[in-house]
Amino acid sequence: MCDQPPVPSNSRPPRNGSPHLPFGDMKGAPWYGKDILSVRQFSRDDLDYIFGVAHEMREMVERVGTFDLLKGKILANLFYEPSTRTSASFTAAMERLGGSLIPIQEVRYSSVAKGESLPDTIRTLECYADVIVLRHSETGSAKIAADYSKKPVINAGDGVGEHPTQALLDLFTIVEELGRVDGLTVTMVGDLKYGRTVHSLARLLSLYQVRLRFFSPDILKMPDEILLELRNKCIPYEVCSSLEGAVEDTDVLYVTRVQKERFEDPNDYEKVKGAYVITPKTMEVAKPDMIVMHPLPRVGEIAMEVDDDPRAAYFRQMEYGLYVRMALLAMVLGKA
Amino acid sequence: MCDQPPVPSNSRPPRNGSPHLPFGDMKGAPWYGKDILSVRQFSRDDLDYIFGVAHEMREMVERVGTFDLLKGKILANLFYEPSTRTSASFTAAMERLGGSLIPIQEVRYSSVAKGESLPDTIRTLECYADVIVLRHSETGSAKIAADYSKKPVINAGDGVGEHPTQALLDLFTIVEELGRVDGLTVTMVGDLKYGRTVHSLARLLSLYQVRLRFFSPDILKMPDEILLELRNKCIPYEVCSSLEGAVEDTDVLYVTRVQKERFEDPNDYEKVKGAYVITPKTMEVAKPDMIVMHPLPRVGEIAMEVDDDPRAAYFRQMEYGLYVRMALLAMVLGKA
Amino acid sequence: MCDQPPVPSNSRPPRNGSPHLPFGDMKGAPWYGKDILSVRQFSRDDLDYIFGVAHEMREMVERVGTFDLLKGKILANLFYEPSTRTSASFTAAMERLGGSLIPIQEVRYSSVAKGESLPDTIRTLECYADVIVLRHSETGSAKIAADYSKKPVINAGDGVGEHPTQALLDLFTIVEELGRVDGLTVTMVGDLKYGRTVHSLARLLSLYQVRLRFFSPDILKMPDEILLELRNKCIPYEVCSSLEGAVEDTDVLYVTRVQKERFEDPNDYEKVKGAYVITPKTMEVAKPDMIVMHPLPRVGEIAMEVDDDPRAAYFRQMEYGLYVRMALLAMVLGKA
Repeated sequence: MCDQPPVPSNSRPPRNGSPHLPFGDMKGAPWYGKDILSVRQFSRDDLDYIFGVAHEMREMVERVGTFDLLKGKILANLFYEPSTRTSASFTAAMERLGGSLIPIQEVRYSSVAKGESLPDTIRTLECYADVIVLRHSETGSAKIAADYSKKPVINAGDGVGEHPTQALLDLFTIVEELGRVDGLTVTMVGDLKYGRTVHSLARLLSLYQVRLRFFSPDILKMPDEILLELRNKCIPYEVCSSLEGAVEDTDVLYVTRVQKERFEDPNDYEKVKGAYVITPKTMEVAKPDMIVMHPLPRVGEIAMEVDDDPRAAYFRQMEYGLYVRMALLAMVLGKA
Repeated sequence: MCDQPPVPSNSRPPRNGSPHLPFGDMKGAPWYGKDILSVRQFSRDDLDYIFGVAHEMREMVERVGTFDLLKGKILANLFYEPSTRTSASFTAAMERLGGSLIPIQEVRYSSVAKGESLPDTIRTLECYADVIVLRHSETGSAKIAADYSKKPVINAGDGVGEHPTQALLDLFTIVEELGRVDGLTVTMVGDLKYGRTVHSLARLLSLYQVRLRFFSPDILKMPDEILLELRNKCIPYEVCSSLEGAVEDTDVLYVTRVQKERFEDPNDYEKVKGAYVITPKTMEVAKPDMIVMHPLPRVGEIAMEVDDDPRAAYFRQMEYGLYVRMALLAMVLGKA
Repeated sequence: MCDQPPVPSNSRPPRNGSPHLPFGDMKGAPWYGKDILSVRQFSRDDLDYIFGVAHEMREMVERVGTFDLLKGKILANLFYEPSTRTSASFTAAMERLGGSLIPIQEVRYSSVAKGESLPDTIRTLECYADVIVLRHSETGSAKIAADYSKKPVINAGDGVGEHPTQALLDLFTIVEELGRVDGLTVTMVGDLKYGRTVHSLARLLSLYQVRLRFFSPDILKMPDEILLELRNKCIPYEVCSSLEGAVEDTDVLYVTRVQKERFEDPNDYEKVKGAYVITPKTMEVAKPDMIVMHPLPRVGEIAMEVDDDPRAAYFRQMEYGLYVRMALLAMVLGKA
């Protein structure tokens, strides 16, 4: 059984079916009115659909820069913790589609005691906006928001929970750069324990026929829970003891930051940190069409000398994020 | 004499007259170029006019979502203290009319010593924007801003002074939900001493034939100044000692928050707080067409179980606020 | 030789030449894709060109308020230190041209240690935006940003370095108000040591046949470096010991703030401060067509009684800033 990719449960309604349409009649738009909460909600067909739309967005942006697909639509960009990069990306996505924004930075109300409840805020914002993007420090908050909102909610990161648009843009980067996912070897490097990015990406990759490699400090290993999921889906993976030997036949090198604060003894950090830094030397032994990815921001884990290598895909990755977020916004608003 | 509503002084120019037109010639727009500073500036005719426009805004939003009535106009949204809800509402109002915003959060310059004077800031912003919305912690600041500005100024709350757009949206909610104001019984509950919301609403209601009821802790009673105004306008009111008996024939139940900090002795707060919380039990004895209102945010004074009661109007109230602010923006910019 | 203005080195490509065109083919737009980093990059021809476009912007704004020259273009407004006035001015400029903004306040990341490097932020933003405006506390940061960005960068102030758009709007104010620059006497008053505004303006003025006067406390004198540049360019200047005698034949009185904190002994400040305050009395002896300028914010150095004098140009100066910034945005985006 293990040589076939798992048959995905199709969590989305058939394209010509009758999805739940809370505020309109665009029956042909399968994602109309839906929430984007978790990578677990996507089947492989869903991903094909999203990436198809995202690719069209790319072509439109390259051709005309901006267009009026969402003219007159308003996005409430609700951030309970600062995340300039994600906030800016959603802002650009909405504006390149001709839409408008209500930006809300609610950083000061980190404590529930001081402000109003998330459901009340959401029920207020749904009066003003057509779609809500939510960044929150507490796991599960995106689901709560979606439960109370009549308008679609897109999870832009809820604590250690999910950050599904990041995982989607990571996978879309692979698709656009390498043309396929099946058959690839993806090596994940760095902090694999606390990084929700690598967890979500591993889950999405498990819908494809891939080989995974993990290289991390002992105390920052990929959690057993994820490894179990991979085994259940018959995804071959191996844990590496060094980058040497692992990079040579890697197609995607996914790098994350190893934070000093994770180590009880700073000396332990000093001992290992060098092993997780990508340098021009790392690139010498890599395939000519390998790509290096990073969720950014980076702080030293990829040397700046690597930036000019055509295989350095981490800035292009930001651009792919724009297209994926444009696609999601257009989809949940019934325009794609 | 007391059975007739007071004849309002018509503070606005006749609709076909010649209002002061500082930057154009739209003679047919009676509010063109005017400031919105205080509920005291409105006659009953004014309110009819505003609510007529606001109702049109509601119909337009329901039909098309957004339209380009204020395309090319720029609103400077100048907030010297944080107020996410009000700021977001004006943002949405301007965007649903096709206009743009300059958002300015000047929270750090709470002290005059550190920044420039309000008149200088206003004289700068009038170079950039077509209309200025001002939220400030000091009473009277909206008037100062309006005195210096050639562009219309809308007061979005100045300290314990005024918050006229809140009072207008409160009254518009009543008009839209119940179809009339004359003849209604309005019961105000909670902190009636420090809440500028209830003061301003009471003033506006005194232009109509209403009955008012006040229910508050002893230390948070409606100020004598307001009561005197009501008596002068022959508005019947009573001070209640409990919600029981008061709710039964109430048409509008207006709830505000009772803050623990208002009480010298926390025990006093604990003793009374329960009496000011609206629960499903409260709703059982209420009229089938009563509405519950709240300026929001709420923190416990209306149980969440009430939210699904169709008479819970406090979230719709937010939406009515959008229409009222759209109306005011269109009016002072000569487009309605 | 000294009675001729220096022949400017023409730093911009000929208008019908072939400038570096990184992302298009608008060969007729000489500033297309260029960065605006320093006043030193402008020749007198450049200034003529910029002010010509800015004057057209003024006429368009006066006629129609807003127009769609930059519709679909996105400006990343990246501010690492707060500057409400400059930020609002660029926001208004972009919106009056029909464009959109990604506003980014990165104040909390003043330390490099906490956030990512400026080059990484820039390489991210160039994925989202068409042009980047940067305000930063470190001298030279605008140049670094421009080096990494494929999209044009406009310096909105980098530390004690440059603030070229301020100098341009100062000079444009003179041009629009007085119709010429050659032959004028410009008197600069206040803190001439730390004010980058007066340094940049002096440099731009040195491209013309002007007479300069400097009046400042001893410890806040115009730096020798600037004086040397003026001598090299044969610009006559004199250092004044009082405003009396200096104002009478002045055409432009440029006032800046003398900050108490600059003085070691507060008594020294108290002794001199009065001499640097412009009052109605100052205006009595001034020419009928002299103009008073100030980069704003002011804190007492021009009495508010002067505001109603038609020669008080400092609020109009803000408006000219709008037109200059509109011109620069349109130019670097290939539309002017």
